[in-house]
Amino acid sequence: MATTIKDIARIAGVSPSTVSRILSDKPSLYSGYAPETISKINQIAKDLNYRKNRSAIELVTKTSQVLGIILPASPTNFAQEIIAGIQKVASLHDIDIIIAYAGEDSEILQMQALKTISERSVRGILLLGITLSSTNAHFLRSTDIPYIFLSVAQPEPDLHFIASNDFDIGYQATNYLIMHGHREIAFVGADIPSCVGQLRLDGYRQALKDHHIAYRADYVIPGNWLYDDGIQAMNMLEKLPHLTAVVAGSDLVAAGVINRARQLQRRIPSELSVIGIDGTALCDIIYPQLTSIQQSFYEMGIKGTEQLIQQTNITSSYTQIRTKKGESVATRLSN
Amino acid sequence: MATTIKDIARIAGVSPSTVSRILSDKPSLYSGYAPETISKINQIAKDLNYRKNRSAIELVTKTSQVLGIILPASPTNFAQEIIAGIQKVASLHDIDIIIAYAGEDSEILQMQALKTISERSVRGILLLGITLSSTNAHFLRSTDIPYIFLSVAQPEPDLHFIASNDFDIGYQATNYLIMHGHREIAFVGADIPSCVGQLRLDGYRQALKDHHIAYRADYVIPGNWLYDDGIQAMNMLEKLPHLTAVVAGSDLVAAGVINRARQLQRRIPSELSVIGIDGTALCDIIYPQLTSIQQSFYEMGIKGTEQLIQQTNITSSYTQIRTKKGESVATRLSN
Repeated sequence: MATTIKDIARIAGVSPSTVSRILSDKPSLYSGYAPETISKINQIAKDLNYRKNRSAIELVTKTSQVLGIILPASPTNFAQEIIAGIQKVASLHDIDIIIAYAGEDSEILQMQALKTISERSVRGILLLGITLSSTNAHFLRSTDIPYIFLSVAQPEPDLHFIASNDFDIGYQATNYLIMHGHREIAFVGADIPSCVGQLRLDGYRQALKDHHIAYRADYVIPGNWLYDDGIQAMNMLEKLPHLTAVVAGSDLVAAGVINRARQLQRRIPSELSVIGIDGTALCDIIYPQLTSIQQSFYEMGIKGTEQLIQQTNITSSYTQIRTKKGESVATRLSN
Repeated sequence: MATTIKDIARIAGVSPSTVSRILSDKPSLYSGYAPETISKINQIAKDLNYRKNRSAIELVTKTSQVLGIILPASPTNFAQEIIAGIQKVASLHDIDIIIAYAGEDSEILQMQALKTISERSVRGILLLGITLSSTNAHFLRSTDIPYIFLSVAQPEPDLHFIASNDFDIGYQATNYLIMHGHREIAFVGADIPSCVGQLRLDGYRQALKDHHIAYRADYVIPGNWLYDDGIQAMNMLEKLPHLTAVVAGSDLVAAGVINRARQLQRRIPSELSVIGIDGTALCDIIYPQLTSIQQSFYEMGIKGTEQLIQQTNITSSYTQIRTKKGESVATRLSN
């Protein structure tokens, strides 16, 4: 059996609460005790090979050294970069992280993840790639736990976030292709009903409009940001012979578009230019190397965690986007 | 302020411990109380919008509904599959997971992760892609917490694991190339000093030996399983003109080899065949599609979690490997 605080208290002849406080690593909690008591307790703990039970300590000290992360269940290829940023700041402050997965688009599974995290008296919650239903947002507010959304800008003003401006992403990706002489541009693989998808589509449409290019509904093929969505989109785009360029909703979608285009004997980039969104490590693995609108995922993790740890002034902000150049976009010389 | 167990106890006129037990969801803990008391406590909790504090409950019930996962800090492209398996079984049993990251090859950072997890009174620990130093293995044993290693077979008999047989992986990958007529085969990108790397290299050497092919030290280029290791290895292999095939230590390494080979005007697979190891989703994204020795990552997560939850008989076992066929290996017709 593992040694408990009660064991130590019995041997030392003090109360369990005294032992908790002395072993808490928080001088403010044990400054009232005699130095001999403090050293005696520490010695007994050492002799008995005692390991802290954080639950017990946190109950006594009423402070939490844990941050909760809520992730969507479906795989992304950028969550790891955000978590690396979170991990970096958390380890500097000796704070642990708990991760719970929420289902995609399921109010019940979202609520389950929120409860899992909030019942563990975490110091703060980072919601990564998540949009909550209004019921769940109400629950989150009611927990009194500080929170911040990462990578998805939230529509309600009190739901603070650190994310890219998705309208700008859609605009910049489309504009980049237009600047390279393209006018027949598809927009594929995005989850249009989601905030992120709608904003990127709005940016795409605005870029077309600013260059007097007519919007065509058959050039927009929605999806769920996945590799297979790129494959499916390319199967449909095959029937549109004038198309010269594609804005893919994510790097994964772009990979699907490129690989399927190749099977269909359509050369990238000379016959079809493709731009991705995200700018992850995948861009170098894809052939040809992918041009992509790169988001600052690591920075989102860093900034979000710093704000939650400081808890002074949690605010929304946008992180930078930039064009990461690969070889998947060519200049269109003629029409 | 959030409602606490003490608030409910005061209003109901019972002890906090009674409230803890009744709100624990464990009938065995509150079967002794009168039904009126049980329903009164539940009603007050509901009225006050009380949310459980798991730390408090776990202290009273002495049971944990948490599994800890320890991951290496460096990115892998298979951890997500294992975690998906863990997550699947954990959610069936209403068990949460805590994830902590251990540094690669750092005894201190490993210990920190072990402490982080073990101090939270978890029900079990899943160590994913980790080999512990003997000091840290000693610490792990001393915690009295059940544990199992996933994806890395452990040399010490009491450190149970669910993993692939890495000797077989190395053997099978090499043998596959030999069966396709190759005799000049490199082995690149593996972390040779690690157990996994050494075993795969042993398998490679055994396959060569069984086919009377001489081992050449200049055909073995170590690495750390990463994309860039594939790039570096190909730079060195360029000087070896007779080489016709490569066993890459991982799919990521294979991607690096293939992309760099292409830049060096070496056609895949007609001039150079490449086989990867892992068989992750990356195989379809790479061009040409990668042939790879596929591991059963999802199954490792499933099996490991089931064993920890049952806690009856934790044993070591190997999961299946199979050859996932792509287009990166060609038959060598002449020498």
